[in-house]
Amino acid sequence: MTDLRPDDIHDAVAEADEAEAAYGVSPEIVRTAREALEGHQAHVVRELVGGLHAADVADLLEQLSPEEREQFVAFTKQEIEAETLTHLDEDVREDVIEALGPQEVAQAVSELDSDDALDLLEDLDDEAKAKVLARVPADERVILEKGLTYPEESAGRLMQQALVAVPSFWTVGETIDFLRASHDLPDDFYDLFIVDSLHKPIGSVPLSRAMRTKRPVKLTEIMETELHTVPVGMDQEEVAYMFRQYALVSVPVVDEDGRLVGVITVDDVVHVIEEETEEDLMGLSRVGESDIHATPAATARRRIRWLLVTAFKTVISSAVISQFEATIEQMVALAVLMPIVGAMAGDAGMQVVTVTVRAMATRDLTPANTLRVMLKELAVGGVNGIVFALLLGLMAALWFHNIPLAVVLGSAMIFNMIWAGIAGTVIPMGLIRFGVDPAIASGPFLITTTDVIGFFSFLGLASMFLL
Amino acid sequence: MTDLRPDDIHDAVAEADEAEAAYGVSPEIVRTAREALEGHQAHVVRELVGGLHAADVADLLEQLSPEEREQFVAFTKQEIEAETLTHLDEDVREDVIEALGPQEVAQAVSELDSDDALDLLEDLDDEAKAKVLARVPADERVILEKGLTYPEESAGRLMQQALVAVPSFWTVGETIDFLRASHDLPDDFYDLFIVDSLHKPIGSVPLSRAMRTKRPVKLTEIMETELHTVPVGMDQEEVAYMFRQYALVSVPVVDEDGRLVGVITVDDVVHVIEEETEEDLMGLSRVGESDIHATPAATARRRIRWLLVTAFKTVISSAVISQFEATIEQMVALAVLMPIVGAMAGDAGMQVVTVTVRAMATRDLTPANTLRVMLKELAVGGVNGIVFALLLGLMAALWFHNIPLAVVLGSAMIFNMIWAGIAGTVIPMGLIRFGVDPAIASGPFLITTTDVIGFFSFLGLASMFLL
Repeated sequence: MTDLRPDDIHDAVAEADEAEAAYGVSPEIVRTAREALEGHQAHVVRELVGGLHAADVADLLEQLSPEEREQFVAFTKQEIEAETLTHLDEDVREDVIEALGPQEVAQAVSELDSDDALDLLEDLDDEAKAKVLARVPADERVILEKGLTYPEESAGRLMQQALVAVPSFWTVGETIDFLRASHDLPDDFYDLFIVDSLHKPIGSVPLSRAMRTKRPVKLTEIMETELHTVPVGMDQEEVAYMFRQYALVSVPVVDEDGRLVGVITVDDVVHVIEEETEEDLMGLSRVGESDIHATPAATARRRIRWLLVTAFKTVISSAVISQFEATIEQMVALAVLMPIVGAMAGDAGMQVVTVTVRAMATRDLTPANTLRVMLKELAVGGVNGIVFALLLGLMAALWFHNIPLAVVLGSAMIFNMIWAGIAGTVIPMGLIRFGVDPAIASGPFLITTTDVIGFFSFLGLASMFLL
Repeated sequence: MTDLRPDDIHDAVAEADEAEAAYGVSPEIVRTAREALEGHQAHVVRELVGGLHAADVADLLEQLSPEEREQFVAFTKQEIEAETLTHLDEDVREDVIEALGPQEVAQAVSELDSDDALDLLEDLDDEAKAKVLARVPADERVILEKGLTYPEESAGRLMQQALVAVPSFWTVGETIDFLRASHDLPDDFYDLFIVDSLHKPIGSVPLSRAMRTKRPVKLTEIMETELHTVPVGMDQEEVAYMFRQYALVSVPVVDEDGRLVGVITVDDVVHVIEEETEEDLMGLSRVGESDIHATPAATARRRIRWLLVTAFKTVISSAVISQFEATIEQMVALAVLMPIVGAMAGDAGMQVVTVTVRAMATRDLTPANTLRVMLKELAVGGVNGIVFALLLGLMAALWFHNIPLAVVLGSAMIFNMIWAGIAGTVIPMGLIRFGVDPAIASGPFLITTTDVIGFFSFLGLASMFLL
C-alpha cells in the first residue's frame, strides 16, 4: 500500500484526460480511489472528488463495492455535490442516501432544481421523506410537497418550477433589462414564455431569436404562437414523444386551468426516452429492470419471478410431449428432431413481437396500418416457414433416410411459423387492450404457444402418418 | 366515395386536436387522406399537408401503402417540407425520394441544416447522390461533399456547420450588436462559442447567461472554460454518452488541429440515443433492424439471416440428442423432460446477457467491477438453479414416481444455470474484444451452449445413473 500524494491523483486524472475517451471515469481513477479508501486517506478521496464532474463522481460511486461506497461517502460528505445524487442508479442511491443522513440529503434537496429534488425524494420511504422534508426551508418544502402530489412518471414530476415568464406587452429591451436585474432566475433556460393576464402561456420566444432582435420590438411580434403545451398530468412517455416528434428544447407545463406552472427541458426528457426504450428491452428479455448494481440476493429474487414463467411454459411443453410417449418409444428419431419446430417458430415469433412492440411504442403501428402489417407478417412467416421447412426437411431426410419424416417436420414448421407471424402481431396488440405491458407479457405468451404447437403438430402428425 | 371539402379536413384536424393526444397523426387524418387519394382530390391532400407539422406529415406518409404514398407525393411535390424527409423511416424515405425526383430532393437538401442534408444524402446510392449534388448550389455542395468525407455515424455527420463563434476580446454588448446585424446565423442556437485567433474554441457562454449580463462585461469573464469538445471523427455513440453524462445542450466540434468546425445540438443526439438503445434491443431479439415499413420480401430476407443461426443451433441440439437415442428408447420419460434444462438456463442466461450488454453500453460495467459482477451472476445462477431444481425436480418426482430421475433433472439444471450466469457475462465481454457487436452475437452463442449442455448433462447423467 503506497501513500498517494496529490501528484498521483493529478496524474490519474490527467492520464484519463489524455486517453481517447477524454471524459468519464477511467479504471485508473477507480484504482486510485480504491487505494486511497483502503489506506484511509480521506484527503486524497476529497481531492479526487473535487477534480471530477458530478456525473463522473456518481459513476465512480457505482463502481465501488458497498463497503467502499460507505467509506467514500463518510470521507466526502462535505464535498459531494447535490447533483451527484441525481446521476446515481437507484440501487446505489439508496445506499448513498442512507450513508449521508437526512441533514445532508435535505441540503442537497434545497440546492437542486425542483424536478431533480423530486426525483430524489420520490424514491425514499415515507419516514425518510418526512425526515428530509422537515429539514428543508419552508418555502421550498411547499413547492416540493406540491410536486409530490403529481402522479409518478407525469409531467408534473419532470418539470422544473423556476422559469422565465414575461407579460405580452413587453419589448425585447424591457425583457433584457428584467433578466439583467433579476436574481432568482433558473440557471439555464432556452425559451421565454409569454403569458396573458391570467398567466396562461400564449407564445414562446427562443433565446437565440430574442438576442437577434432590436430592443424596441415587441415580444408578441417575434413569438412562436404554435405553442406545444403539456398538461401537468401528462404521462412522461407522451411528453417524450412530443419532444422527439417536434425536436423541442423546452416546453411549458400548464395546470387544469391552462395556467403556466412549470417547464420541462430536453435534458430531463433524454433520460425518459432512454428509460422507455430500455424498459421495452428489459421486458422483452424478461429481466424486469437493469440490476447491474443490485445485490445478488435482490437480483436473484427479481429474476426468479420471470423464470417462473419459463418454468410454467416448460411444464406445459412436457405435458404435451407426454401425450406422445408411445409414439416416441416406437420412433426415437422423433425425440431427436422435436425441439426444432418450436425453437424456429419461437425465434421467428420473437422477431415479430419485438418489431411490433417497438412500432407501438414509437407510434408507427396504428389502427390505420394494422391490417397491412398483420398480412405482411403472415406472408413473411409463410415464406420463411417454407424456406426452413425445405432446408431442415432436407437435413432430416438425409440424416434418417426417411422422406415421410422430413415431410412431417416441414409441414409442422410451415404451420407453426405462420402461426408465429400472426401471433407475434396479435398478442402484443391484444395485451395492450387489456392494459398489460406488451413488452413484458408478449414473449412468454408467444413462446408457450409456439412450443405447444411445435410439439403437438410435429408429434401429432408423426403419430398419424408415420407409424 | 363522398366528395371531401375543406370543412371536412378542418374537422378532421380539429377533432384530432381536441383528442387526448393533441398532436401526432390521428386515424381520422389518415382516413381523410386515404379517401382524398382514392378520389384523386389533389387540393384536399395539399390542404391537409399545409395544416400539419412536418414530422406529422412524415408519420402520415408512413401509414400509407406504397401506392398511396406515390400518389400523395405526386400531389404534394410543392407543399411537402424538406424537414418531412428527415423524419421518415429509411424504408419509406427511399420510396418518397424516388417519387420526388432529383430536382425536388436537391431543393430540399439546400433548405436543410447541413447535418440533416447529410442524413438525407448518405442513404442514396452513388448515382442518385451525384444527381442530387449536381443540382445543389456550388457553395452548399462544397460543404456537403466535405461532410460526406467524415465516416458514417461520426460527429462530423451529426454536426451542423452553421454556428455562432465570437472572438475572445468581445463584450456582451458587441456580441448582441453582432447578432442583431448578422443575417446568416443558424435558426436556433443555445451557446456562444468563444474562439482564439486560430479559431480554436476556448470557452462557451450559454445564451441565458449572456442575456442576463450587462453590455460592458467581457465574454471571457462569464464563459465556461471547462469546455467539452468533440473531435470530428468521434463515434456518435461516444457523443451521445457525453451529452447524457453532462446534460449538455450543444457541443463544439473540432478538427484534427483543434479548430472549431461545427456544433452538435441535443435534438440530433436524442435520435442517436434512441437508435443505440434500439439497436441493442433489435440485436438481442435477432431482428437486426426495425422493419415495420419494409416490404414483405425485404423483411423475410433480412430475418432469414438471423433464423439461420437458430436453425444451426437446433441441428447441433439434435445431434447431441441423437447420441442418446438408445437411452431415450429405454426410458421415454427422458424425452418428456429433456427440453426443461436447456429452456430454463437459456432464459436465465439471456437475462444476464441483456443486463451485461446494456451495462457495457451505458458504461456501468468496466474493468473495475467486472470481477464483482461475474461473481454475482455466478451466485445468482447458483441460487436460482437450486430454487428451480427443487421446484421442477419435485414436479418430476411426483409425475413419474421416480426420485433418481428428479435428482438427475435437478443436478443438470443447477449445473447449467451456473454456466448460464458465467457465460452470460463472459460471452458479451469476450465478443466485444474481438470487435463483434455483443448485442447481436451473444444470444445465439449463449443459447447454443445452454441447449447443448442442457441436453448433454441431463441425458448423459440419466444414461449413467438411471439405466
